[in-house]
Amino acid sequence: MSLHAFVAETFGTMLLLLLGCGVVANVALAKTKGNGGGFLMVNFGWGLAVFAGVFAAAASGAHLNFAVTVGLWVNPDTATFAPGIDKNLGNALLYLLAQMIGSILGAVLTWAAYKQHFDEEPDPANKLGVFSTGPAIRSTPWNLITEIIGTFVLVFVIVSFGNTPSGLGPLAVALLVVGIGASLGGPTGYAINPNRDLGPRIAHAFLPIKGKGSSDWGYAWIPVVGPIVGGILGGLLAPLVHVATAAA
Amino acid sequence: MSLHAFVAETFGTMLLLLLGCGVVANVALAKTKGNGGGFLMVNFGWGLAVFAGVFAAAASGAHLNFAVTVGLWVNPDTATFAPGIDKNLGNALLYLLAQMIGSILGAVLTWAAYKQHFDEEPDPANKLGVFSTGPAIRSTPWNLITEIIGTFVLVFVIVSFGNTPSGLGPLAVALLVVGIGASLGGPTGYAINPNRDLGPRIAHAFLPIKGKGSSDWGYAWIPVVGPIVGGILGGLLAPLVHVATAAA
Amino acid sequence: MSLHAFVAETFGTMLLLLLGCGVVANVALAKTKGNGGGFLMVNFGWGLAVFAGVFAAAASGAHLNFAVTVGLWVNPDTATFAPGIDKNLGNALLYLLAQMIGSILGAVLTWAAYKQHFDEEPDPANKLGVFSTGPAIRSTPWNLITEIIGTFVLVFVIVSFGNTPSGLGPLAVALLVVGIGASLGGPTGYAINPNRDLGPRIAHAFLPIKGKGSSDWGYAWIPVVGPIVGGILGGLLAPLVHVATAAA
Amino acid sequence: MSLHAFVAETFGTMLLLLLGCGVVANVALAKTKGNGGGFLMVNFGWGLAVFAGVFAAAASGAHLNFAVTVGLWVNPDTATFAPGIDKNLGNALLYLLAQMIGSILGAVLTWAAYKQHFDEEPDPANKLGVFSTGPAIRSTPWNLITEIIGTFVLVFVIVSFGNTPSGLGPLAVALLVVGIGASLGGPTGYAINPNRDLGPRIAHAFLPIKGKGSSDWGYAWIPVVGPIVGGILGGLLAPLVHVATAAA
Repeated sequence: MSLHAFVAETFGTMLLLLLGCGVVANVALAKTKGNGGGFLMVNFGWGLAVFAGVFAAAASGAHLNFAVTVGLWVNPDTATFAPGIDKNLGNALLYLLAQMIGSILGAVLTWAAYKQHFDEEPDPANKLGVFSTGPAIRSTPWNLITEIIGTFVLVFVIVSFGNTPSGLGPLAVALLVVGIGASLGGPTGYAINPNRDLGPRIAHAFLPIKGKGSSDWGYAWIPVVGPIVGGILGGLLAPLVHVATAAA
Repeated sequence: MSLHAFVAETFGTMLLLLLGCGVVANVALAKTKGNGGGFLMVNFGWGLAVFAGVFAAAASGAHLNFAVTVGLWVNPDTATFAPGIDKNLGNALLYLLAQMIGSILGAVLTWAAYKQHFDEEPDPANKLGVFSTGPAIRSTPWNLITEIIGTFVLVFVIVSFGNTPSGLGPLAVALLVVGIGASLGGPTGYAINPNRDLGPRIAHAFLPIKGKGSSDWGYAWIPVVGPIVGGILGGLLAPLVHVATAAA
Repeated sequence: MSLHAFVAETFGTMLLLLLGCGVVANVALAKTKGNGGGFLMVNFGWGLAVFAGVFAAAASGAHLNFAVTVGLWVNPDTATFAPGIDKNLGNALLYLLAQMIGSILGAVLTWAAYKQHFDEEPDPANKLGVFSTGPAIRSTPWNLITEIIGTFVLVFVIVSFGNTPSGLGPLAVALLVVGIGASLGGPTGYAINPNRDLGPRIAHAFLPIKGKGSSDWGYAWIPVVGPIVGGILGGLLAPLVHVATAAA
Repeated sequence: MSLHAFVAETFGTMLLLLLGCGVVANVALAKTKGNGGGFLMVNFGWGLAVFAGVFAAAASGAHLNFAVTVGLWVNPDTATFAPGIDKNLGNALLYLLAQMIGSILGAVLTWAAYKQHFDEEPDPANKLGVFSTGPAIRSTPWNLITEIIGTFVLVFVIVSFGNTPSGLGPLAVALLVVGIGASLGGPTGYAINPNRDLGPRIAHAFLPIKGKGSSDWGYAWIPVVGPIVGGILGGLLAPLVHVATAAA
């Protein structure tokens, strides 16, 4: 992976997290103009965050998500991580590193953009909720299952995009994320991406956020492990519906 | 129909039902993050459920709906069910079987993703509503008419897509479903698809859902018969506006 | 204009009104599943109603709106009403006739789809509101100005679509209508189309709607005259930004 | 820059402001049909305002925003402001002039479309809010930072569009603006465009708006300087992710 691709993956993931955490801040924090804007607004915010990130990260194939990296890795119909980027452990770790740096940077920028609203927000849980996901009802097995199912859909369909060539480009994955959020985001807030959750949680832990509470590290492994398992399942099962002769 | 196409139709319908039932679960069940998210969120959820399903089911032409299968069957301007899949009774029944298996699987996955919220939800009607449609005001003739009109629009416009080639691909049918839901979903919850309703109702009947009530089998035939009639009308009337020289 | 094009324009306008009036019925009438769904849902409903109608009316160029017919007529950069349909009075009147028949049919189908909800709705103003527009604050000059501005934007931008070729096809006009509704629909409910308002008002007058009130004929000329004036202005001013060398 | 391009940039910016200020009027002013329609409706309204403006301003490259003009100016990978329009101070000032004229005209048309609702609205702050942005929590440094971040994202991604060719055309920038609004509009109402804020503020100052209050000139420099700084940063940093061989 070239330095250029590494930087692109970093910037793309940074935009994903800046806009993604941003819409949660807008809906959840005190005194914002979008306060109480509703779950559909959150879904569109995250979907369009992916949209922006994909344009920026074209040089790296715009994984923006280690579950996608892993899903492509195990998918037998995908030859490389991106044009010119071979599938190997070194490149996978470079994707992960770029995604983690980008995730943390994006969360820091969200905090800067909403600095005064973090200061005014009384509830520490709302502050953490801007950064990381948490379950509506806490349960290790069921929270894991929800994240596995959501990420399975994400990676399975992304790998299937080549089946039906369209002129949609980055819009296809953006709309897919809007849909997964609306449909499967209810129980756990749809991390469906390990670094989407872990990067901002790290930022939450080290940023000087006024009145912040716990970073809830006890839950942190679930939105890492669940999406990785879901991504592997998506990549492994996608060949069942693969259309061999379709052009990308 | 090849086994590969059969599997694709099954997976596509499974994704349709998983994401479609999922958005209803998110809006309707207790303690979800999208609770009370509104009808437009339900409309986008179902539309994007179609979007995801179409990419997965490219190998079978992505009917995902027996009313579409029947509508294409009776439409004189459509030569085959999909490239390489002839119109005949055997293939029609294979579509139906794949759609039914996929519908049931999708509903089971929705139940798994929202397991704890089914457990916490006190109202059995809300639980059934995640799986199957029901009328806002019960009336055999008028509920049938509403389902016939909605499915007529769906199939008539799908068959007309070739009239105006666009680069939208699966987005066109997704947006059509968003629109039909917003506009014609008010009285019956827009099944507009026999297996969309019947498959999950079967799942509701056999799944060990805590505190579930009746599966309302008395209504079950309406969202089967109405959509089939509407699909036949759509397929038969579409030639009135068919543009013969337009490429797909 | 061929009979085939006439039928296509009729069906396209019928779908426009069925889905457009339908979303208002869903939001406004008693006991529907989308009751109180909000103005953005109405905007998407009407925009996607256009979307469906355009696919059906490809053979006639999908005007669906006499203000569009008139705007194209006066626009010097547009050679014909549609490929093979010359600009002349006879064809203009055939468009108008097809649009009126389609509008009335669409409104009748909306009434059938929501029959029971019309029966249950206590407020006659809500019933009329499903069919025709009315002003939030009644004023002949200002209501006219609002309709003129809204329709000017519609026709000016439709004529400008050729300036920037995109793969959006019918989606472009659908989104334009979503935007005009959200932005300029506040004062008069955005007829921006003479037959969109007049056809359903005629249907309201003759249909046996339970407990219906006045069809408000005193207001009926404003959403006819305003859109025609706006369409003419749009067609006349569009050459100011016309890009001569752009392919459609 | 030709007169034709100048006029196109003026009309495009006029449509942007007419539809953009219009959706705020619909949501905020008394007695409108979209009153209380929510922040997501505002986001879609502004995004689709960009959509309409881009089609109209094709002849000028549709900057519609002086932060975009400046961002393209400093971006080393962009050869001209638009095909046939060289980067130089004279053309930059012509863009600015056209954008300012268009912004003021658009705001005047919004006022005309909503004239009666301005008259009925009791709160002067709501009237100003239709024209110009204002901070949820006033703070010179943090309001500046929010506007810088939002405009950085806008210009960085616009310049990156060429990285991933899609058939979306004007829809891409429209959706980007929907996303930035939903995600980063909470603290300052997302001017992200100097003339979007200044032009309507000038209109607010000179129009005979019934019961209007202060035009809040003390804040007026922030949504001018912030977006210009953000646009410069976006244009300067975009080469970090530039894909040299991608066709536009």
